[in-house]
Amino acid sequence: MYKKLKKVNAAILIIGNEILSGRTQDKNVSFISEWLNNKCGISVLEVRIIPDVQKAIIKSILSLSKKYNYVFTTGGIGPTHDDITAESISKAFKIKYEINREAFKILEKYYGKRDFNTPRQKMSKMPRGSKLIYNPSSAAPGFKIKNIFVLPGVPSILNSMIENCKPYLIKGLKVESKTLNLFTVESKISKELEDIQNKYYSNLIIGSYPFFKLGKIGVCVVIRSENKKKLKNCYKEIKKMVILKKIKFH
Amino acid sequence: MYKKLKKVNAAILIIGNEILSGRTQDKNVSFISEWLNNKCGISVLEVRIIPDVQKAIIKSILSLSKKYNYVFTTGGIGPTHDDITAESISKAFKIKYEINREAFKILEKYYGKRDFNTPRQKMSKMPRGSKLIYNPSSAAPGFKIKNIFVLPGVPSILNSMIENCKPYLIKGLKVESKTLNLFTVESKISKELEDIQNKYYSNLIIGSYPFFKLGKIGVCVVIRSENKKKLKNCYKEIKKMVILKKIKFH
Repeated sequence: MYKKLKKVNAAILIIGNEILSGRTQDKNVSFISEWLNNKCGISVLEVRIIPDVQKAIIKSILSLSKKYNYVFTTGGIGPTHDDITAESISKAFKIKYEINREAFKILEKYYGKRDFNTPRQKMSKMPRGSKLIYNPSSAAPGFKIKNIFVLPGVPSILNSMIENCKPYLIKGLKVESKTLNLFTVESKISKELEDIQNKYYSNLIIGSYPFFKLGKIGVCVVIRSENKKKLKNCYKEIKKMVILKKIKFH
Repeated sequence: MYKKLKKVNAAILIIGNEILSGRTQDKNVSFISEWLNNKCGISVLEVRIIPDVQKAIIKSILSLSKKYNYVFTTGGIGPTHDDITAESISKAFKIKYEINREAFKILEKYYGKRDFNTPRQKMSKMPRGSKLIYNPSSAAPGFKIKNIFVLPGVPSILNSMIENCKPYLIKGLKVESKTLNLFTVESKISKELEDIQNKYYSNLIIGSYPFFKLGKIGVCVVIRSENKKKLKNCYKEIKKMVILKKIKFH
């Protein structure tokens, strides 16, 4: 991974009926998004969750691949009939969908020749020219083709593989953040926050999120910026405002 | 809500930097999706998560509004500068963004005349012609404009409001599901599942999800269909196959 001092962005594409139907709670978005920002300085600008339907996968892949520097997909690379991500991506880019020799060898070694049956062999099929993303948990690799990173849906396996995406990524500017928890209501500080936001314009983003915890209401103010100095100054300014208004905070 | 015996679909649009950055774990997708299917027979076919950026909101609203019967948005309807959902939707449809008299009255009554300041008044602004979605938790209503349902981001508040969307929805065919947890690996049943899936073709969808729980590995097989009879038959068929293969299940 080499460093580029500019903004690099990504989209996440979650492929799976089980997430869309609400049956399974997605955990991959927050993990990938935090990892990309903290470790690679890459900001996730869009997430889509779509069903295991070839047409939907092709459409989203083509559109997100054009719009963002990178696309991370999760789900649909197992051995069953509903695992159609690799084949769909091959079709999207009109690249041959075929057995990757290296992936085949890894899986054959992992399962043993006798148990390496046709469904398992399917996990070595991917678009021609893909680079493998190694899987230290359960062998079956993900892959990178063009600007698409194809990862599994099971969070523990995905988490164990994510570092292996790094060699293929260009590092961007990390968005740093600072948080202030205020014991007040949003309407008491919204004018002031807006003025501060306008002053810093597009150099930083101030987010205001009400919280309700243990019977207490409050506002969590999050400042995000690639510019550490401006972040620090803005944080001080908000803190000063809060103290002036005699609002408790931590 | 009147009943229509055909498929009705929806998309969910999560608006918020805090979800996109991974700072906050989204909980609204699974709640809305399950509610829509179980209570209204409406299937969610796509979810997007986008930042608090007007251009991104307008683009997603216009595209999803055309593609699906309904769109449910969450987030960005509070009193602060980063709450731009209502104004962005007005711009998307080129409808005047103005104070809704009924919402204004509800909020004025809730806060009392003295405390009903400008930031709070902002929460009564929405596209002209919007229908209110009442909020029994914290008064500030959501609204419906065209086929868009605009809801808050805080899960507990959203959950308390969702039933108030019902009068505006056409009921579709509920997708029923049956689940079998098998103590085996996917590759042992993938051929059989595929054959069964092919037999039922597009009348039902069989999903296969590996699980790892308390040191045990297994496969969760989920069958989903609007046709109860076919669902039952398919369930029986998979069960028969599983028993034949001497696979433990529950």
